[in-house]
Amino acid sequence: MQTEVRYYQEPQLNKPVMVCGLPGIGSVAWLAVNHLQKELKAELFAEVFSPMFSPKVWLTDDGLVKLMKGEFYSWKRNGRGTDLLLFSANEQPYSPEGQYELADAVLALAQKFAVQRVITMGGMATDRLTDQPKVYVGGTEIELVKELEEHGAVKLAGGAITGTNGLIFGLAKPRRIPAICLLAETPGYLSLDANAAKAALQLSSRLLNLSLDYEALDQQAKENADAVEKAKDLSRGPFSHEARKGERDLSYVS
Amino acid sequence: MQTEVRYYQEPQLNKPVMVCGLPGIGSVAWLAVNHLQKELKAELFAEVFSPMFSPKVWLTDDGLVKLMKGEFYSWKRNGRGTDLLLFSANEQPYSPEGQYELADAVLALAQKFAVQRVITMGGMATDRLTDQPKVYVGGTEIELVKELEEHGAVKLAGGAITGTNGLIFGLAKPRRIPAICLLAETPGYLSLDANAAKAALQLSSRLLNLSLDYEALDQQAKENADAVEKAKDLSRGPFSHEARKGERDLSYVS
Amino acid sequence: MQTEVRYYQEPQLNKPVMVCGLPGIGSVAWLAVNHLQKELKAELFAEVFSPMFSPKVWLTDDGLVKLMKGEFYSWKRNGRGTDLLLFSANEQPYSPEGQYELADAVLALAQKFAVQRVITMGGMATDRLTDQPKVYVGGTEIELVKELEEHGAVKLAGGAITGTNGLIFGLAKPRRIPAICLLAETPGYLSLDANAAKAALQLSSRLLNLSLDYEALDQQAKENADAVEKAKDLSRGPFSHEARKGERDLSYVS
Amino acid sequence: MQTEVRYYQEPQLNKPVMVCGLPGIGSVAWLAVNHLQKELKAELFAEVFSPMFSPKVWLTDDGLVKLMKGEFYSWKRNGRGTDLLLFSANEQPYSPEGQYELADAVLALAQKFAVQRVITMGGMATDRLTDQPKVYVGGTEIELVKELEEHGAVKLAGGAITGTNGLIFGLAKPRRIPAICLLAETPGYLSLDANAAKAALQLSSRLLNLSLDYEALDQQAKENADAVEKAKDLSRGPFSHEARKGERDLSYVS
Repeated sequence: MQTEVRYYQEPQLNKPVMVCGLPGIGSVAWLAVNHLQKELKAELFAEVFSPMFSPKVWLTDDGLVKLMKGEFYSWKRNGRGTDLLLFSANEQPYSPEGQYELADAVLALAQKFAVQRVITMGGMATDRLTDQPKVYVGGTEIELVKELEEHGAVKLAGGAITGTNGLIFGLAKPRRIPAICLLAETPGYLSLDANAAKAALQLSSRLLNLSLDYEALDQQAKENADAVEKAKDLSRGPFSHEARKGERDLSYVS
Repeated sequence: MQTEVRYYQEPQLNKPVMVCGLPGIGSVAWLAVNHLQKELKAELFAEVFSPMFSPKVWLTDDGLVKLMKGEFYSWKRNGRGTDLLLFSANEQPYSPEGQYELADAVLALAQKFAVQRVITMGGMATDRLTDQPKVYVGGTEIELVKELEEHGAVKLAGGAITGTNGLIFGLAKPRRIPAICLLAETPGYLSLDANAAKAALQLSSRLLNLSLDYEALDQQAKENADAVEKAKDLSRGPFSHEARKGERDLSYVS
Repeated sequence: MQTEVRYYQEPQLNKPVMVCGLPGIGSVAWLAVNHLQKELKAELFAEVFSPMFSPKVWLTDDGLVKLMKGEFYSWKRNGRGTDLLLFSANEQPYSPEGQYELADAVLALAQKFAVQRVITMGGMATDRLTDQPKVYVGGTEIELVKELEEHGAVKLAGGAITGTNGLIFGLAKPRRIPAICLLAETPGYLSLDANAAKAALQLSSRLLNLSLDYEALDQQAKENADAVEKAKDLSRGPFSHEARKGERDLSYVS
Repeated sequence: MQTEVRYYQEPQLNKPVMVCGLPGIGSVAWLAVNHLQKELKAELFAEVFSPMFSPKVWLTDDGLVKLMKGEFYSWKRNGRGTDLLLFSANEQPYSPEGQYELADAVLALAQKFAVQRVITMGGMATDRLTDQPKVYVGGTEIELVKELEEHGAVKLAGGAITGTNGLIFGLAKPRRIPAICLLAETPGYLSLDANAAKAALQLSSRLLNLSLDYEALDQQAKENADAVEKAKDLSRGPFSHEARKGERDLSYVS
């Protein structure tokens, strides 16, 4: 079995920009692309299946089967400015080769649609919880890094980015597709850091000239903050059912 | 070496339904398909060999060599109603990619024979031993789930199915083959749960309009129950040879 | 990089029989094929290189590099009776897929030379050291097993054979090449069981109508016996340098 | 995704010799080829990308992304004598198959440029720190080994070389490219053994008729020696910040 992209439609897109985010630390990238897709009502037009995903299937509440897969969405801006391609997946491939394989398949699709730029995202683990997470930026070209710095990002000077989000970014270079990677600060202990996702999206939306509603992410961020507060209170008192419930509210969703 | 299907015959089948079951928890699916093949006297028409199976061979009591492999059987209903294709194997591939590879090869054969529906099976581990195991159902379409609910199955609302039985079910969807998965309740400690296999088969036979004899499975289930009873008695008394013999009677067969 | 067979000559062979032996328990099969090659002065005509072998190279005493590889030798009987093809390698591939891959490449070569029969060998671990090891036989057909029983082999009734020696045997069946596997009794603690190798070869030579000199194997077997005897003596006395030297004499050679 | 070589130029080279060095023990080979490339101002003309490298990207101090990759450099001698091809990479592939794959890709490029000889390098771990490391040599032909012995190398009589540096050397043989491997003595605890790299380069430069400046390597070697000296002093006194700083100076760079 080969990695295979199945098309349900062939959207006609104007100078599209591609935004990619797979699950990872704090689910930052996944939350951001998911939010973008819902807010813009972007349409699913293709899916990628691969033996590189883990060997299992999921069931919906209706008893319907879902494969592990990646999804491609398109959004048309009504002719003004660039259109969008979105990519996400419900997990990262478990093997190193699988991560290269998926990143390569995503970029092959990007080239097919003559994508002008690729934006990948991720979380950068720090040990502080802040209302205003910094967003770091790296790029395939210095001009891109500078452009994002003007929008408020901090240059990623050194370091490594692991996993598929990093590989989509890096493999864009030999394909000569301009690409940036935005990493938002996130404390390691949050599994769904909506605040970090919002910070990464705000920067992206300035670049993409989008005006987004962040209510859903704000709501999620508030729930996180409340849960953290509750956990702090409880760590002072006796260990209780409520404390454990608080932790469960933060459980990983992908 | 590639995964390869070898045909010994090319059966002409009328709107076939495919029933698949590989070894897994409680050997439920494997027992069910094995019983079906024997009761219907279905004929072997193809085998699948793959480097994804474990690197060993078996010997029969006659000293004849047997490879690890999957087997395809066909059964003709004498022109009335749908014919059957059965698939089983003596093990699941040991690697994740191998499980995708085998599932994909099985579905390619299903498409070649214009299979109308795929039924996969499995065990769902619970901590109770019951005479009347519930059978859960998931599907590629809501109509299929409802149809099985009418036959007495319980909707699988959420959760994951791991391994090849789940992948055959899930990968049927992008190939547009309607598929269901039936999971029969089984206590984790039985290696050959004939009772669970019977429950899954009874549901399938209603769907397939088959009338089956279950004597062999009933006999196996009775032996299981006796062995469990013996083990309980012995866990009250001193540890003895007979107790250990009881356990051995439940040893895994695949 | 693909598994690749390199030909140095293209021998013209009369109804050849192929004898295969890779390193394994007691090095039985490897010792046997190695002895056969030296006694018959069989000629190297092809080598198989593969990324499935371990990632290292060896150096000879002259400083020359040797890859991990498999070697094919041919021997012509001067027109009377069947010619021989020999196959051995300095290790078994380390991964399961690699073992299938190599076995498949060996059998593809066997088919290219219209091999009439394949003989594979191996050791069967027992806990006794005997001067007269039994040799067990399994086959792709009952006639073959019976023929070997007449020559003194014991039928392998049940059980599994793991690794590449077993896979060459098993994968011969779907290719419709008659094949047997001879397993000679060997105690688990000998790394070079020359006695077991001799027993397997004696059976093979009756089948192949060969008359072999076993002096080199007898010499090796005598050294083994002496070393075991020495080790027994020393296990009664204080732990000494000589005892350790005795163990070293049995070190693995491949 | 396949292993892929991307050409930025197609240099015209006169009877080139290829010098290869990937990171390994003491970083000997990597340091040597890196030094050669800088001293000769050799030009990057191709890169090799592969899913066999680890799934991550690096960022420069300017925020620019760098993939894990291999790099090919060319150097022209102005028409007198042989030109040079250099190969290095920022890591060895993590899997055995990946190491074969990369070695094979390097040799395929060597053949495309009709390389006359391949020189690979590495470290040979010993337990002594010496100012004058011995350099051992193995070859694909006895004449090569003898030629290097005349230049002061010691024949590698027996033993194994693991990893990609060894595989490039070994796989040159079935491709009929004359090759040597130079292993310089290095104590196991140095991560950047500039002294060993210099010793290997000095031998190579005699073979290649090159006159090199070693100042950068001498400077690195002096820092190593100072750090080792400091560590010795500190192991006598109390554990201090300075001692730890000394250790950090030796940290692995690749």
